Amino acid sequence: MATNDQLLLYLKKNQGNWVSSELISNNLSVSRSAIGKHIGKLKKEGYVIESSPKKGYLFSEASDPITADEIKEGLCTKVCGKQNIIYLKETDSTNTRAKELAAHGASEGTLVIAEKQTNGRGRRGRSWFSPPGDGIYFSLILRPAISPNETPRITLMTAVVLAETLISLMKLKLRIKWPNDILVNEKKLAGILTEISTEMDAVNYIVVGLGLNVNTLFENSSQEIKKSATSILIETGNRTSRVKLIQKFLKLYEQYYDMFKKNNFEPIMNRWRQLADIIGKQIKVDVVGETHIGEVVDVDNDGVLILKDDQGKLQRIFSGDVTLARQLK
Amino acid sequence: MATNDQLLLYLKKNQGNWVSSELISNNLSVSRSAIGKHIGKLKKEGYVIESSPKKGYLFSEASDPITADEIKEGLCTKVCGKQNIIYLKETDSTNTRAKELAAHGASEGTLVIAEKQTNGRGRRGRSWFSPPGDGIYFSLILRPAISPNETPRITLMTAVVLAETLISLMKLKLRIKWPNDILVNEKKLAGILTEISTEMDAVNYIVVGLGLNVNTLFENSSQEIKKSATSILIETGNRTSRVKLIQKFLKLYEQYYDMFKKNNFEPIMNRWRQLADIIGKQIKVDVVGETHIGEVVDVDNDGVLILKDDQGKLQRIFSGDVTLARQLK
Repeated sequence: MATNDQLLLYLKKNQGNWVSSELISNNLSVSRSAIGKHIGKLKKEGYVIESSPKKGYLFSEASDPITADEIKEGLCTKVCGKQNIIYLKETDSTNTRAKELAAHGASEGTLVIAEKQTNGRGRRGRSWFSPPGDGIYFSLILRPAISPNETPRITLMTAVVLAETLISLMKLKLRIKWPNDILVNEKKLAGILTEISTEMDAVNYIVVGLGLNVNTLFENSSQEIKKSATSILIETGNRTSRVKLIQKFLKLYEQYYDMFKKNNFEPIMNRWRQLADIIGKQIKVDVVGETHIGEVVDVDNDGVLILKDDQGKLQRIFSGDVTLARQLK
Repeated sequence: MATNDQLLLYLKKNQGNWVSSELISNNLSVSRSAIGKHIGKLKKEGYVIESSPKKGYLFSEASDPITADEIKEGLCTKVCGKQNIIYLKETDSTNTRAKELAAHGASEGTLVIAEKQTNGRGRRGRSWFSPPGDGIYFSLILRPAISPNETPRITLMTAVVLAETLISLMKLKLRIKWPNDILVNEKKLAGILTEISTEMDAVNYIVVGLGLNVNTLFENSSQEIKKSATSILIETGNRTSRVKLIQKFLKLYEQYYDMFKKNNFEPIMNRWRQLADIIGKQIKVDVVGETHIGEVVDVDNDGVLILKDDQGKLQRIFSGDVTLARQLK
């Protein structure tokens, strides 16, 4: 094991406690000056390590780097994130990177994760605020042997998996907003951007992108973002380990994806309907250039929203921005 | 006008006739040695110009370069190929190039055309034989405001436009082979490869790729290709101007695409059904790992083949390789 890794392991074992340079030096047979150099490197990778001339070093519980090594350690999946994790300190958009990798043959389960996105994207070219250190921004490459018309199911499934992850880890009261957001108290906690490359009758690859506000406080954000966005920290009052959240998500994702590949989509969709809590509701949908008002009859297995208007006429809506009627008052 | 262009225009005006260096020199006020140099350049661009010390130069009717300038000259479209034509002497695959350009924002109607493809692709990663000089290999970028589930219609429409172009120009007796080939005498004349980039509910771009054997003779081809492929030259005995064919195709394409965008797909699909001549036929379809036998009841507006088996049970087939029952005997 490299000295850096030995040191990291030693500090982690003593997380929350001060350890002196002398103790480390004796245990790892490294000089004190070398320790100082290695600590510097670890800090650059995103670990929070306090140092004091008297007490030595303290590996802080605030340490939460999302490097490939950290994610892989203890990750119990066979495909998702198992073969290949690409960690980037900063990138324009993890979806853009993942699409490039997929176009050059990157295998199913490849994960691209970034500490910061300079051009984080949402649906239809909208931007996704992606400050460093506090969020999770990643993209997963999938290559399912399905027909192109089944691909919207991947977005629906991803929303369910993310919701289940958040419910299981921190008991959040959330809802899925059709088609691709997770809301808590009607504020945006997470967004999903699925980008798909197909031929007429076959899928080349799917990139599932996810932006999740974990420990974000939006202190330097615009009023618009402060009003419309939230984070796990804001909602629970607690900081969350991003690595543990990612690992949990990937594990659940693989289980659901296996179900999906076995044509067992109905239970996933039923759970989606439950989590979205939109059926029977009066809504307004803004589609490019048009507004539809009515009651939601269903969201079908392909993610199409079925709306009944005043005259009882049914409409199939593929895309749009939904507002609940009670929010319109 | 640059000397090269002036010279080209002059030679074209006299196509089929010898013109002496002296005449050219006097008309264009260029030295004889300069003429020789410019002729050399034009030849490199793919023009066929014979030269004789006594008679001068002859612009041959065999000249058929498919440069951007040649295609644009006399092209009466508003979008398709009008703004931007990228001509490449050689590339791996025009679809791959077009996808890269589209991902970086290339506008609707951008055309990528190559004299030769080193890795020409067909459906599902199959290769498309693309020798230089005799074929048409191009890719067109589209950005229709449609939902992803409507995208198969673009492939169906493209097959109709290509068929209509070939029928109108050279009265070929052809048929469309589901989903994406054009056959003459049951041999492959052309193939279409549509590649699509979507989000869950919106299309980013569509690349329509086309490979067409125009003046190809397959002299150095494998037995397999000789048995299964044909060209316009083989079927008609005549060489065809690739530029005129491309211009005609683009003009028709724009007309059909306008109809498509006006939600007027029914007549296009009806023409497709007529040209495919498959409804009511007994067929065998090989889908990955499975074989289906039955009678074709319909190909629906989304390109899905509806097959009725012996027991009268209907099946929806999204993709596969079709053999007509009479060919199985």
